Amino acid sequence: MKLQVTYSFLRSDIEKIEQELKAVVSSEEALLQDAAMQLIQAGGKRIRPIFVLLSGKFGNYRLDVIKHAAVALELIHMASLVHDDVIDAALVRRGSPTVNARWGERIAMYTGDYLFAKSLRCITNIEIPEVHQTLSKAMVELCKGEIEQIRDKYNFDQSLRTYLRRIKRKTALLIAASCELGAISSGASPDTIKRLFWFGYFVGMSYQIIDDILDFVSTEEKLGKPAGGDLLQGNITLPVLYAMEIPSLRERIVKVHSEIDTDEMKDIIALIKNSDAIEKSFILSERYLQKALEVIKPLPRGQAKTALYNIAKYIGKRKF
Amino acid sequence: MKLQVTYSFLRSDIEKIEQELKAVVSSEEALLQDAAMQLIQAGGKRIRPIFVLLSGKFGNYRLDVIKHAAVALELIHMASLVHDDVIDAALVRRGSPTVNARWGERIAMYTGDYLFAKSLRCITNIEIPEVHQTLSKAMVELCKGEIEQIRDKYNFDQSLRTYLRRIKRKTALLIAASCELGAISSGASPDTIKRLFWFGYFVGMSYQIIDDILDFVSTEEKLGKPAGGDLLQGNITLPVLYAMEIPSLRERIVKVHSEIDTDEMKDIIALIKNSDAIEKSFILSERYLQKALEVIKPLPRGQAKTALYNIAKYIGKRKF
Repeated sequence: MKLQVTYSFLRSDIEKIEQELKAVVSSEEALLQDAAMQLIQAGGKRIRPIFVLLSGKFGNYRLDVIKHAAVALELIHMASLVHDDVIDAALVRRGSPTVNARWGERIAMYTGDYLFAKSLRCITNIEIPEVHQTLSKAMVELCKGEIEQIRDKYNFDQSLRTYLRRIKRKTALLIAASCELGAISSGASPDTIKRLFWFGYFVGMSYQIIDDILDFVSTEEKLGKPAGGDLLQGNITLPVLYAMEIPSLRERIVKVHSEIDTDEMKDIIALIKNSDAIEKSFILSERYLQKALEVIKPLPRGQAKTALYNIAKYIGKRKF
Repeated sequence: MKLQVTYSFLRSDIEKIEQELKAVVSSEEALLQDAAMQLIQAGGKRIRPIFVLLSGKFGNYRLDVIKHAAVALELIHMASLVHDDVIDAALVRRGSPTVNARWGERIAMYTGDYLFAKSLRCITNIEIPEVHQTLSKAMVELCKGEIEQIRDKYNFDQSLRTYLRRIKRKTALLIAASCELGAISSGASPDTIKRLFWFGYFVGMSYQIIDDILDFVSTEEKLGKPAGGDLLQGNITLPVLYAMEIPSLRERIVKVHSEIDTDEMKDIIALIKNSDAIEKSFILSERYLQKALEVIKPLPRGQAKTALYNIAKYIGKRKF
């Protein structure tokens, strides 16, 4: 079954979010509009808006209210991608040139700022104080996570805890905020809001771990970049941390730097890929996933709950 | 009379804002805290917080509410300075190394993002929807102004209108928002809010024009950078636009580029400085200032109004 089938009942609402995204970034400044529009048209899974909408179904779902949260979350996500691409000097994202590649780093930095600002502008349409508090809190955490990612580059002495805290901030809390905001915007009960927050959090953790695994086990064709790119860039992810528990492998991994010999790098990637580090990473991802499924068990049955289940399971099985 | 004397009745409140700023950026992430703290300790005129507080005096002034607006505005201003320094590759600001000079561009970009996010986090303490709408609108305009500044670099065909719109977005609207937010947060009347908004707007326009004049007429010692730096970097400011009305001068100005011969640049700066462009720029700045003074005339007399008058007049006479 295709994933989209699971939330097909939201199709027309998702289309409206898409239109809204385009409307929001239309600015009289042509350059900004071009840069922002390219980001939107490049597509993406729109996982955050989908979580907002699905979570909204556990309250009094009103598209004209909740759409602002869905759009705001996607804009923040896009803003962080633009800034990440500047940091990583990335040239291509989803098959299109990045904003920094096409317009330069300066425009990219301000495009990110602009998307952040637009996101806020959008969320102010929902006049519920908790909504603004939740969103700004998630943004602060996101920024901390980004700084930590730079700080921890090529730091081979970091602990599992450091890694988990970083992916919590960089990924999980924004997905958790998506679920939480969908629920708050629909006036769901405090218990429902809390459960959906934790669902998003656990799914987000699982999602990022799988992403970090795929960077080793997927193909260049599917990734759109060579496998093992994270490690080459100094991002010490879960498979690397597990692989370093094997002394002979640790010895070689800690010597990785950005100018490493290509053959040596290929060797190291193959060794990590064939070690038990991948399996162990899958197991941890699976544990988060189980927690996600567990926490929403008490929520009322229905299309929305089924869709949340299916998305969570899809994430755990994703192979690209 | 020293400017500070005019708002000495706010001294203890301003000190509290200063403490609050430090408290807000204290983060468990040492790097972020160091970078943000350096910005705060480098000082600055704190013109935005002062305008927030003074405007608040026209309503039901409550420091425990209004302080959040004052801190949020200063944080946004700081965030934009950090990002501007990345864009300009500036090494020194107010006698200290910039964040990008000390920690690199990546950290600087995320420090700016973090300050933006913290600003929002702070403003959510005021549960008045108009406050959030006003702030996010000002942020969107600020970003547009920043993009325009990049887009318009070395564009010698831009009109006076383009320049005025750019400084409106880059400077005036954030000062206008400071006054507006101070008034809204204190529950001032709609008429008072509107008048304070326009006061901030006109003062902001005047302030930026004076800044652009000083870049030509001040000394390297006072500016902390060589005079004429704006033009060298391609920022076409008001004195340049007026100077280009003189055909012989226009001919030389349009040839300015980043690699221009130092002597030729010095010649051009001297010519602009000695032309009537400076005087004409002062006249326009003065016109904005008069409008600022005019618009708050109907507001009730008192310390706050006197202080606003004095600050406005000080801005018009500032020589460094």
